Amino acid sequence: MSWIFLNDRFVRREEAVVSVFDHGFLYGDGVYETLRAYDRRIFMLQRHLARLERSSQAIGLQLPFADKEWPTLLQEAMERNDLRNAYLRITVSRGEGNIGLDPALCGRPTTVILALPFQPHAADLFQRGVDLAIVSVRRNDPAALSPQIKSLNFLNNILAKQEAIRAQAFDGLMLNTKGEVAECTTSNIFFVRGERLYTPAVSCGILDGITRDVVLLLAQESGISVEEGRYEPSALFQANECFLTNTSMEIMHVRSIDSRAIGYAGQAPVTQRLQETFRRELPRFLEQ
Amino acid sequence: MSWIFLNDRFVRREEAVVSVFDHGFLYGDGVYETLRAYDRRIFMLQRHLARLERSSQAIGLQLPFADKEWPTLLQEAMERNDLRNAYLRITVSRGEGNIGLDPALCGRPTTVILALPFQPHAADLFQRGVDLAIVSVRRNDPAALSPQIKSLNFLNNILAKQEAIRAQAFDGLMLNTKGEVAECTTSNIFFVRGERLYTPAVSCGILDGITRDVVLLLAQESGISVEEGRYEPSALFQANECFLTNTSMEIMHVRSIDSRAIGYAGQAPVTQRLQETFRRELPRFLEQ
Repeated sequence: MSWIFLNDRFVRREEAVVSVFDHGFLYGDGVYETLRAYDRRIFMLQRHLARLERSSQAIGLQLPFADKEWPTLLQEAMERNDLRNAYLRITVSRGEGNIGLDPALCGRPTTVILALPFQPHAADLFQRGVDLAIVSVRRNDPAALSPQIKSLNFLNNILAKQEAIRAQAFDGLMLNTKGEVAECTTSNIFFVRGERLYTPAVSCGILDGITRDVVLLLAQESGISVEEGRYEPSALFQANECFLTNTSMEIMHVRSIDSRAIGYAGQAPVTQRLQETFRRELPRFLEQ
Repeated sequence: MSWIFLNDRFVRREEAVVSVFDHGFLYGDGVYETLRAYDRRIFMLQRHLARLERSSQAIGLQLPFADKEWPTLLQEAMERNDLRNAYLRITVSRGEGNIGLDPALCGRPTTVILALPFQPHAADLFQRGVDLAIVSVRRNDPAALSPQIKSLNFLNNILAKQEAIRAQAFDGLMLNTKGEVAECTTSNIFFVRGERLYTPAVSCGILDGITRDVVLLLAQESGISVEEGRYEPSALFQANECFLTNTSMEIMHVRSIDSRAIGYAGQAPVTQRLQETFRRELPRFLEQ
């Protein structure tokens, strides 16, 4: 039996419902953040809350809670569900309103906070590495809907994910509309060539991932030189190593792209070193 | 008190709710159609149902009802709500499922059918014409998420609508990522120059509107020559007339774009002739 925060109180899962007139349901009109708690301490909490605020502003939505109220609600969500290691999701939709695109039709936003047991990927996946497929679906063009807005509009990524599943890959690697490497459906991508770490620049039209930023910081601190740029897919096939980052996976080794092995015999010393550094330095990034 | 069809039965509005785990709410993972009934007879019903099927196929969603079941449900929705002239909306989302993009997480789709009193725009709006603003938000790139899929991902259009509202316009005219004229937030656009009618080709990345198709047919039957092509915004400012089409507005006269008057002294003889033809020929397009 789980407890879910809905608007102003904690309710049971079966009571956690929204109207079919909620613009979140009708139009995907809303924003979200997913966070991860390690022993109740939340990874980069303030950065996640800042991004929630930025996403909301980008769609002209006033968040129903102040910056300092969210941490209390997130902690209560974990306590009520007796969770120490949790997957947390804050969703704020435009709320219930008559049919129409104008946000003014909605009275007050709908807030949902989920706290679920954190379910890690199998440990051997991190060692062995995952397989990616470059999908034909291109990442949303920033001029149409910026990938920097973490919104409830996920069909672009879902179409990419479906293509990856058909290709029996772990995830789909999306290019931007110019054909440059962008990101996977819910993670950022890095690759290593020689002594250098490369990752698509935010201006390629990707989410400026928070784990991505932490990895860039840790790489610099470790003396690994880093380049954020624009890359053709061919650059990936010349890489020695490749990995993905997001809040729930941290750093995930990629062993192949489109069935072509990356690097040599599964060796990924830079990835492994960053994984170890991430784990060692993690306490610096936990809050509350 | 209104009745709403939800999955397998008609419920009251306050019971018409979906789980916060519905992928329609979490991700905008679903499709819809809006239809209009004139005295219980539905405009281009089969075409709307065919497009619902096509949208569903495009996102790999199996519709929970067969083609011939929808008309019965739509009629019952109107009867229960004692409506003769109705706005109808069929929504089918992926359904409730655990967190994640994979549609296989969801058991069965969620179906919602709304039947609401049809609320026409004020008659003087059709005569006077509406004002459009060309917005900076570009229409979704077909390589990322085809505008031909009528999906629950509407933020692209909502951002455009918000920009139009700020500009005090009736609606926002969206260009595609190449800078060509695409469509408004929920309607297709036509313009008249000389004796000819022009409208962006579907390949510009627009919805292939059903009213758009009917207008193209009626124009041809009326001996008006028609061109579907790719147009720069400048073409609109050289037009003698401009109008919008969708199921609920039918044909709406546009009097200005970015505060520049279209045509001469509000004269729009071709638009007016098409509006009259549409009204006269309407019974041909009503079903059931």
